[in-house]
Amino acid sequence: MPGTLEKLFRPSSIAVVGASRNPSKIGHLVLRNILSGGFEGRVYPVNPSAEQVLGLRSYPSLSSTPGGVDVAVVCVPAITVLDVVEDAGEAGVEFLVVLSSGFKEVGNMDLERELVVRARKHGMRVLGPNVFGYVYTPSKLNASFGPSEVLPGKVAFITQSGALGIALMGYSVVEGVGVSSVVSVGNKADIDDADLLEFFEEDQSTSAVLAYIEGVENGRRFVEAASSFSARKPLIVLKAGRTEAGARAAASHTGSLSSGPALWEGVLKQVGALQVKDVEAAFDYARLFSAYSSVAGLSTLVLTNGGGAGVQAADILAENGIYLGEPPRDYVEKLRTFLPSFASTRNPVDLTGGATEELYYLALKHALDHPEVDSVLVLYCETKVADPLQTAEAILRALEDSEAEKPVVAGLLGGEGSRRAVKRLAERGVPAYPTPERAARALAALHRYAWLRSMLEKRRVQAQPQLALLHE
Amino acid sequence: MPGTLEKLFRPSSIAVVGASRNPSKIGHLVLRNILSGGFEGRVYPVNPSAEQVLGLRSYPSLSSTPGGVDVAVVCVPAITVLDVVEDAGEAGVEFLVVLSSGFKEVGNMDLERELVVRARKHGMRVLGPNVFGYVYTPSKLNASFGPSEVLPGKVAFITQSGALGIALMGYSVVEGVGVSSVVSVGNKADIDDADLLEFFEEDQSTSAVLAYIEGVENGRRFVEAASSFSARKPLIVLKAGRTEAGARAAASHTGSLSSGPALWEGVLKQVGALQVKDVEAAFDYARLFSAYSSVAGLSTLVLTNGGGAGVQAADILAENGIYLGEPPRDYVEKLRTFLPSFASTRNPVDLTGGATEELYYLALKHALDHPEVDSVLVLYCETKVADPLQTAEAILRALEDSEAEKPVVAGLLGGEGSRRAVKRLAERGVPAYPTPERAARALAALHRYAWLRSMLEKRRVQAQPQLALLHE
Repeated sequence: MPGTLEKLFRPSSIAVVGASRNPSKIGHLVLRNILSGGFEGRVYPVNPSAEQVLGLRSYPSLSSTPGGVDVAVVCVPAITVLDVVEDAGEAGVEFLVVLSSGFKEVGNMDLERELVVRARKHGMRVLGPNVFGYVYTPSKLNASFGPSEVLPGKVAFITQSGALGIALMGYSVVEGVGVSSVVSVGNKADIDDADLLEFFEEDQSTSAVLAYIEGVENGRRFVEAASSFSARKPLIVLKAGRTEAGARAAASHTGSLSSGPALWEGVLKQVGALQVKDVEAAFDYARLFSAYSSVAGLSTLVLTNGGGAGVQAADILAENGIYLGEPPRDYVEKLRTFLPSFASTRNPVDLTGGATEELYYLALKHALDHPEVDSVLVLYCETKVADPLQTAEAILRALEDSEAEKPVVAGLLGGEGSRRAVKRLAERGVPAYPTPERAARALAALHRYAWLRSMLEKRRVQAQPQLALLHE
Repeated sequence: MPGTLEKLFRPSSIAVVGASRNPSKIGHLVLRNILSGGFEGRVYPVNPSAEQVLGLRSYPSLSSTPGGVDVAVVCVPAITVLDVVEDAGEAGVEFLVVLSSGFKEVGNMDLERELVVRARKHGMRVLGPNVFGYVYTPSKLNASFGPSEVLPGKVAFITQSGALGIALMGYSVVEGVGVSSVVSVGNKADIDDADLLEFFEEDQSTSAVLAYIEGVENGRRFVEAASSFSARKPLIVLKAGRTEAGARAAASHTGSLSSGPALWEGVLKQVGALQVKDVEAAFDYARLFSAYSSVAGLSTLVLTNGGGAGVQAADILAENGIYLGEPPRDYVEKLRTFLPSFASTRNPVDLTGGATEELYYLALKHALDHPEVDSVLVLYCETKVADPLQTAEAILRALEDSEAEKPVVAGLLGGEGSRRAVKRLAERGVPAYPTPERAARALAALHRYAWLRSMLEKRRVQAQPQLALLHE
């Protein structure tokens, strides 16, 4: 069942069925998050046994609310959910977000099937059941019982796991990776990854998707939606259940029979997704793709004040198929005017341990201005000569002062000051990491995505004539 | 040239040649670190043109100091280093720590060779040249120009890279991984990794070594020392220059011709070292081995409140050759008395998103008490039901209350509170990490080391009869 999810993410009104005055209840937490998040549409608590919840007038049913409801967030026990569906149908609700658990994940297949059948009869679509809700920052909407603090940004995060997803909401704040959306898909009885990818592909506020997936039901639809998405925006996939052991654990978790791990490996390659193996890499990539999604060419320059950090980066880049060429000759000549004579001007360029903030500025500025440099990896080892925060400022200044728009990724290694510098850069939109290797891997992912996208583009172009033939 | 390094690490007296009153000079920074670190032996600034440096009486030469000098830290320009060697020989110095650069790394092979020849003539050994100094926390000795803040602990860190090493000193403090020692080996003209491994193998204060290596000169000696070390304590090696590109970068960095990357792979396997590819994994392992170096068997139990985190851990463990068996039947029966009915009691055990701190305590305590459980991986996803810090306390309480001494590794995923909980556990000696995957990889490393050690032991035993034959 196709159809846009526009109203799910940009509703005029939202109701919480099972809104509660008890602060430990989910129906309380969700309503509180909606209110504290600053959602500007109408909000209706639905609870027949309360006059008011959290200062809002409460209604006995969805159909008794005035002015219509776009989205109903359902927080009642599983056995009463079908009644809510009928009430919602009567009220003209478009989307049911069913937080209730007690469906497929505990063996209640029939109840889950019935939920979807009845919803569809009324033209409604269902997110869930067994979800913690969803977030869409452009609408200032936090209809979840996750953390109330959400950092707005450009990454949409789709998660099949509840507790992991909630924890990752907090993680994204600490890591400084902002989100456009967080969607808990739970049992995926109706709305699934494919539907969401279709929405986020068109969504102006989303520049990349990060999906935690244990399994999907409709493989073909997933492949189509994911390929189409990847051709336009990066799709980062954390596929859990990669091994037989993991797949077994997943089966007893969401009850989703994750098809053969080997199969998935192939599927993700085919659709052009970037597969990651851990949440750290997933968010490292998300941070990168929040800033950049393309790079003009393969000519990467590495700047470092620590030879060892440069060697590590060269290794990681080579292990990911990126080989560092020599820096352009006239760039080297420029470097020679301000670098000490013993500094290596090969690639990685070793600015030496005596490099000051100003030296970082000059080396980066000239690199950005040079037409033969496509991207720069700036590495910094904390020394007493260059203050970490001042070095971060120097990087930002070089980016501001240069006309060129080229990807710059930074790795700043050291103590507390370096951590603050990483945060500062991240806040200003420069993907920065606390180790040289994580920075190098992020830059490698950017190259990988550029390559994947060009492959998808080629495939699409080659497929055209065949399609034309088919339609003749 | 063999001989113990005892006096290098536990000197009665130390001199800084080139001690300076100028706070930007290395000869000032080193002396200040020695003094602020709390070293309890005698300290002599050597500077012919100063009466006092940092409140201490300054001497014109090493030979003019009263009472002898065990270690001389040399911070003078390369061209005057040979004069210092003669002076040191006269003064009966045992170890020269040559911070000065301008030797092999810039092509001055002859000067470097002469330095060692002359030092040996006087029975002295040389650390360096081109180093940032060294730290040995049992002696409260920080004879480096790295950070003055050092966290005492059990890991000895040997680094061939200067700036990277200094930055990692700060990193180790932020990460809460304490060190027994940090040794900058620089050009390794005399004292090298093998010498240091021999010392740290016997050193009661060191339980593991983390070595950043670009290349070694004497391969055979390295293999012997590393094998011997690994048979008793874990050796974590960050081998830079694993790829041709990285090796090239290393060559222009330390001038050490790192022999073929493929060769190294084999050598590290042969000696039983744990190879890591990035500084994050290196310190993750160091944290693990600060707490544990052995595990009784392969029976690992995973506890989690988030199914997804459990799946991720199962994947990572399986990818590292560790397969989770079913939990013991009577343990499951115990779990059933306090877990909700829908909780999965397979392995990973899903305590469910509703798990409280008390539930973590019970599940862990019973696991520790069970004779068929060898180690426990505790995973936590930040929820509103279990506070992260309280969960950390519950883990600590279970460890205290159980008689059993078994490895427990924790992964706590979430926001700021979870980060604090990770820190709290780390401070109390429980290896804890901010993601489930890093925790799982650390536990896998413990199993890997247990296996490597048993292999080394077997090889040693099998080699005995042959040796006996040889001596007949």
